[in-house]
Amino acid sequence: MLSDIEIAQKNVMDEITGVAEKLNLSAGDLETYGKYKAKISFEKLRELQNKALNPSERGKLILVTAMTPTAAGEGKSTVTIALGDGLRHIGKKSVIALREPSLGPCFGIKGGACGGGYAQVVPMEDINLHFTGDIHAITAANNLMAALIDNHLQQGNELGLDPRTISWKRCVDLNDRALRNVIVGLGSRIDGVPRESHFQISVASEIMAIVCLSKTISELKERISAITIGETYARVPVTFGQLKCTGAVAALLKDAIRPNLVQTLEHTPAFIHGGPFANIAHGCNSINATLCALATGDYVVTEAGFAADLGAEKFMDIKCRMNGIHPDAAVIVATVRAIKMHGGVAKADLSHENLEAVKKGFANVRCHIENMKKFGVPVVVAVNKFVSDTDAEVALVEQLASECDSTAVLCEGWGKGGEGAVALANKIVELCDSECDFKNIYSLDSTLEEKIETLAKEIYRADRVEFESKALKKLKAYDAAGYGKLPVCIAKTQNSISHDKSLLGAPSGYVFPVRDVQLYSGAGFVVAFAGDIVDMPGLPKAPSALNIDVDDNGCISGLF
Amino acid sequence: MLSDIEIAQKNVMDEITGVAEKLNLSAGDLETYGKYKAKISFEKLRELQNKALNPSERGKLILVTAMTPTAAGEGKSTVTIALGDGLRHIGKKSVIALREPSLGPCFGIKGGACGGGYAQVVPMEDINLHFTGDIHAITAANNLMAALIDNHLQQGNELGLDPRTISWKRCVDLNDRALRNVIVGLGSRIDGVPRESHFQISVASEIMAIVCLSKTISELKERISAITIGETYARVPVTFGQLKCTGAVAALLKDAIRPNLVQTLEHTPAFIHGGPFANIAHGCNSINATLCALATGDYVVTEAGFAADLGAEKFMDIKCRMNGIHPDAAVIVATVRAIKMHGGVAKADLSHENLEAVKKGFANVRCHIENMKKFGVPVVVAVNKFVSDTDAEVALVEQLASECDSTAVLCEGWGKGGEGAVALANKIVELCDSECDFKNIYSLDSTLEEKIETLAKEIYRADRVEFESKALKKLKAYDAAGYGKLPVCIAKTQNSISHDKSLLGAPSGYVFPVRDVQLYSGAGFVVAFAGDIVDMPGLPKAPSALNIDVDDNGCISGLF
Repeated sequence: MLSDIEIAQKNVMDEITGVAEKLNLSAGDLETYGKYKAKISFEKLRELQNKALNPSERGKLILVTAMTPTAAGEGKSTVTIALGDGLRHIGKKSVIALREPSLGPCFGIKGGACGGGYAQVVPMEDINLHFTGDIHAITAANNLMAALIDNHLQQGNELGLDPRTISWKRCVDLNDRALRNVIVGLGSRIDGVPRESHFQISVASEIMAIVCLSKTISELKERISAITIGETYARVPVTFGQLKCTGAVAALLKDAIRPNLVQTLEHTPAFIHGGPFANIAHGCNSINATLCALATGDYVVTEAGFAADLGAEKFMDIKCRMNGIHPDAAVIVATVRAIKMHGGVAKADLSHENLEAVKKGFANVRCHIENMKKFGVPVVVAVNKFVSDTDAEVALVEQLASECDSTAVLCEGWGKGGEGAVALANKIVELCDSECDFKNIYSLDSTLEEKIETLAKEIYRADRVEFESKALKKLKAYDAAGYGKLPVCIAKTQNSISHDKSLLGAPSGYVFPVRDVQLYSGAGFVVAFAGDIVDMPGLPKAPSALNIDVDDNGCISGLF
Repeated sequence: MLSDIEIAQKNVMDEITGVAEKLNLSAGDLETYGKYKAKISFEKLRELQNKALNPSERGKLILVTAMTPTAAGEGKSTVTIALGDGLRHIGKKSVIALREPSLGPCFGIKGGACGGGYAQVVPMEDINLHFTGDIHAITAANNLMAALIDNHLQQGNELGLDPRTISWKRCVDLNDRALRNVIVGLGSRIDGVPRESHFQISVASEIMAIVCLSKTISELKERISAITIGETYARVPVTFGQLKCTGAVAALLKDAIRPNLVQTLEHTPAFIHGGPFANIAHGCNSINATLCALATGDYVVTEAGFAADLGAEKFMDIKCRMNGIHPDAAVIVATVRAIKMHGGVAKADLSHENLEAVKKGFANVRCHIENMKKFGVPVVVAVNKFVSDTDAEVALVEQLASECDSTAVLCEGWGKGGEGAVALANKIVELCDSECDFKNIYSLDSTLEEKIETLAKEIYRADRVEFESKALKKLKAYDAAGYGKLPVCIAKTQNSISHDKSLLGAPSGYVFPVRDVQLYSGAGFVVAFAGDIVDMPGLPKAPSALNIDVDDNGCISGLF
């Protein structure tokens, strides 16, 4: 049994120029990073954007999302990649659009994010580590902003920025819990102004969200300028634009804004670009990657973070809405094991057949199916096959799916690559040809409170929302400042449809608490916090870093 | 009058594969980063290393160093690049080897480091900003180590590491004074162990020094393992290797260890790779870049940081000695303006002819000439031409140089490119053909104290050294621990040959104070501090970031 990295390293990649040809992209449209990675040129990017923004010229958009994740694992990226390959198996011109992985989890506990088994994107070590430098550029841009803000305090604080209100955090793209809460500026008069501050992981930076939502450098600059960094002593919000260094920050991002092209093990083209958090941000790859894929492929398979209640909702209500696009079909990735966990089975007992638990746990999948239908998007359940699944269990999932007017299709991408996803691919083509009456779940014209309430009731199935007074006060202030028409971005646990990670299955009839809210005036949304969200993960006692190595030929081992 | 960036952007570059052909490198020997940047493959790197380490197969090595810098500017990189181009003008197969710039100064006050005028390396924006990601990789590797160290404390501290002794700093490649002194690990039990800590600029990281001194990944790993990170409660030194995560850190550096190839405005090949500080580290480009250049060119022009007392000395006593190479000739870059400043003229009065000041200030240049002769290296003074220099002043410099058995040659590279350095190139060829009786200034067999004393007396012209008792105690401990045979790396001001930046010209007869010492057991040297060294610069009131911008085609302006 080969490990993921061994499978990836045994694979013989096509040169990236050959992969690009499948999308009618020439060598001149690319800036190559070695033989197997490339960025799209500014000129071609503009051309592809224009094409993709025209409904009659773009391909079909398939969103891969998932049931509520458990410790059992779901394999959303694996299904996304297998489906992309599977569509090629049935003669379709498919393209994949995915997020790029953060370094942090690679050395921590989760591992990389290039799929698994025979459904992977390659070169996996490069993609998982530095790739084309996008996240490093975002880290540098984020931290340049922080250095300029602290320098403003140091050099006389002309704007009257109250150090106690500075909300801009520094970042590193690593799991480093010791940086969550820090005091900076200690020493003497020449060493800065002492204040409490915080670091987050780079992918949680608002700069990451902005890079993923900006089509042009002009738009990038507008958004960076609009970022709220704190308040004056007179309590007036201060934006980064007031420091007049937006151009310098944008200069660091000139390459990071352009999508990266790589390939799957089966040489299907894949745009891998941007990777914002799925709680305090919108959790899907860049709009530029999606547009490039829509302009060059007939079937674009993309993914959104966490389960459908978070990732799919934000994909449609934030990213798609900003650009007038929407998915033509959605895939909900489920596993028999995860369904059984939602049905109350402990992790240690998952290998035993348990039809009762499947029946009970399917409530979670059903809830996500219903949610997708509320958006008017045709939906299919992909059962990501595990060795321990019994035929009876799979058959039961299929039956339960059909009982809620949907279909469940077995996907064996992990073990068989694209061939294992042919049935799913056929189903997707069928769904894409069917009627799609897309609508967003809330209107931007509703108040911010109404938007949160709609999501809590319609998607998370709560009875009502309880806003803490601090949150309500801030929402009213955002409204008064002209931010009332922004979409909302809910930050809550990914382990339940509710705000409470212990509520498995399909919770309902509870109170959804909104503890706090925060304005992301650059990214263009208001984050509502329903619980404590960690924006800087920690390392476990035995981190993956213990197993990773590299030899004198640069060959890496132990990365997964 | 065009700015540096305008000159660079108007230049039509050759494709990097064409530049590589001049060095008999094929496309297969390269990993390209876009059209104009490339890294050397592992296989070719090994081949070139072996060739360069054989004295009969390598080219001549020319070290460009400088007189003591002043606010007037010297233009060492400009002369290095012009000389490389100038050698091509006279039909020589020249190659340039330079350090890669840090991001910090680009947004601060100093600007980039790609030369100036018509003697530049290109693409200058890429080289100055992210280049091929080497420094970002070093930042990530350095900070992964820090995260692993703090995680060790968090997870039970099996090694008994005393948090008060942890000397490993985090880093960002920016000027951010607020990070000089911080407290990390605040919050609750899950947020780390509170302790005082520090950030430095990435180029000051021991990882940067190690990348620049390691030929292979094996060597890189040995050095990373050997880094001293602190002490146990029982005062026993702890090395990073004890955390058993060296392979993961090295994996982040697998590309960073390989040299980058770019070109000058005149298409002369230039290896630009690594950029360690010239005070707490050795201050010159990587050994791998130098070896690649020596194996592919007949004349290799390279540069060392700061003036000859620091950069040239470390180049020869640390980097060259570790690899059995030495320069065949040295260039001391001087300017009439800087000589006059050393002669007591204020910056505002530099544009007036002042022969007395030239005569007086030349003492500084004379001291550096004598120092280079102590190494047995033939030396020439390159007078980097400024518009305000008078013919009489230049003639006087030439006369003064010949009075100490050397030669001064006017270099007009800034205004004329390689053509302006033809006279210098001819002189260099002559020197390289002359006898070179190279010897290091101190023997590795001397004690650490003796090594420091030799440098203080022979190079800095002090009467004697005064060690603070703390320093002496640590030196004895290093000796007892088996580090006595390491070279020393002096950290002192670059603005004087002495430790006191107010002492211009050629100070002598003073006491050289050694305040503290620190073991860099990974890089393989002992740093002796003669004064306060800032390893994290700050931003000025009006940073360069105010002027930098980028347009919708990705074209950057305002970078210098």
